[in-house]
Amino acid sequence: MTIELAEMQRLVREGVPLARAWGVEVLAAADGEATLRLPHHEDLLRPGGTVSGPALMGLADVAMWAALLSLTGGKDESLTSNLSITFLRPPAPRAVIAEARVIKKGRTLSYGEVLLHSEGEPAPCAHVTTSWAALPRPR
Amino acid sequence: MTIELAEMQRLVREGVPLARAWGVEVLAAADGEATLRLPHHEDLLRPGGTVSGPALMGLADVAMWAALLSLTGGKDESLTSNLSITFLRPPAPRAVIAEARVIKKGRTLSYGEVLLHSEGEPAPCAHVTTSWAALPRPR
Amino acid sequence: MTIELAEMQRLVREGVPLARAWGVEVLAAADGEATLRLPHHEDLLRPGGTVSGPALMGLADVAMWAALLSLTGGKDESLTSNLSITFLRPPAPRAVIAEARVIKKGRTLSYGEVLLHSEGEPAPCAHVTTSWAALPRPR
Amino acid sequence: MTIELAEMQRLVREGVPLARAWGVEVLAAADGEATLRLPHHEDLLRPGGTVSGPALMGLADVAMWAALLSLTGGKDESLTSNLSITFLRPPAPRAVIAEARVIKKGRTLSYGEVLLHSEGEPAPCAHVTTSWAALPRPR
Repeated sequence: MTIELAEMQRLVREGVPLARAWGVEVLAAADGEATLRLPHHEDLLRPGGTVSGPALMGLADVAMWAALLSLTGGKDESLTSNLSITFLRPPAPRAVIAEARVIKKGRTLSYGEVLLHSEGEPAPCAHVTTSWAALPRPR
Repeated sequence: MTIELAEMQRLVREGVPLARAWGVEVLAAADGEATLRLPHHEDLLRPGGTVSGPALMGLADVAMWAALLSLTGGKDESLTSNLSITFLRPPAPRAVIAEARVIKKGRTLSYGEVLLHSEGEPAPCAHVTTSWAALPRPR
Repeated sequence: MTIELAEMQRLVREGVPLARAWGVEVLAAADGEATLRLPHHEDLLRPGGTVSGPALMGLADVAMWAALLSLTGGKDESLTSNLSITFLRPPAPRAVIAEARVIKKGRTLSYGEVLLHSEGEPAPCAHVTTSWAALPRPR
Repeated sequence: MTIELAEMQRLVREGVPLARAWGVEVLAAADGEATLRLPHHEDLLRPGGTVSGPALMGLADVAMWAALLSLTGGKDESLTSNLSITFLRPPAPRAVIAEARVIKKGRTLSYGEVLLHSEGEPAPCAHVTTSWAALPRPR
């Protein structure tokens, strides 16, 4: 059920066009955990120079998807049902790292959390929890 | 303290580059309520033809911002602290309407909700609650 | 599929022992909406004289349950999956009213919101959103 | 700034009457982390024999309070602003353990998470995130 990083990155970019547009990279994905990287983009900044909230939410969403895909060998079985993000400090104007972790993989509902931080900065800039519902049928 | 729609749209697009990139329109904004429209974009779709989650989150975020700005005459006084979205049904591959409403405007924390639905479709595709914290200083 | 208020109150108190212990009353319940009342109790106060958070959460939870039961003729088909409460202002030391509303009744997931306010005080003291998952089997 | 466990337990039970009524115990509290225990109570069960949701929410709320108090030497400086709980599996009809952790201690907003599990059962029955706002004045 393992899956190559390159294949995971391909899946994630194909499934979420914004991830492709933003050049999101999959750095690690195994055993229900995944690390993704959002490269620096001028057009994802807010005035003041911090990475915009919607970009962080999008990154967290695909990071959890990668963590879930790591448990199914890349088989897409669920869809975001809820995503809750709390912003902890303004992210610096550089790349953002997302560390996702599946807390529960259920038959109908799965749940996990994602910590986001600026690259090279250990303190988190945002924390996310997210629920995923099983797909009624393959998408 | 009223503010023209065109001016509101300019503020929102200037403050959130993704809103500009996606061509988000402000249809109404007054008295703590705002209606925004995300036009149809092929590159905001997921395979299967539904508008992607991150696009809905981004739209909801700027919709609440517009609702808050409608109470301050366009003066930017707060920043998203938390945003929680629940997806209720897949949005159709067309424009999305966001209806935001401030539930509480506080000195340090404000709170509101946003209903999202496909244009011409009354049933909501997503519901959002969001908290905003007062800015320590003007941004 | 209608159900008497007295029967609804009996169901709610039987299903949630805390609701019985606190004397929660069902004032209305029909068509996916329900109004419940938590009477004043000295031992549900915090120092400072406001109704404690856990009491508000418990009240909101049973209020949504009543709203859902109003759609099924009292048939218990789901279980709280997520409950998110935001406290807006300290509730006065008197009875609390909860107004619950089902936003979506789905086959596997339902979702709704609850506004809480002190009796006789229109401004909400808390707002709740909550998701309910279909029961795998009758409980 | 350290504080004795017995003193912490006294604070927590005094501040939250439900914690006293339920006999909540503080097993550990230091450096922004706290472990609390809710003893088994027949009247906190739901039909079917699982611990009721409101009891879990109340336990999580006081657990985060203890974790925050561990950072201030017991000085009460904030109030729950938001609490979001996701139920992962039905808790067994026995004592429940809550492990709280402050993720960010800010001047105006703090944030943390709580894992809940049945005593002797490693898999979590619920996960909580919660935000706390600084008190305008001592309570």
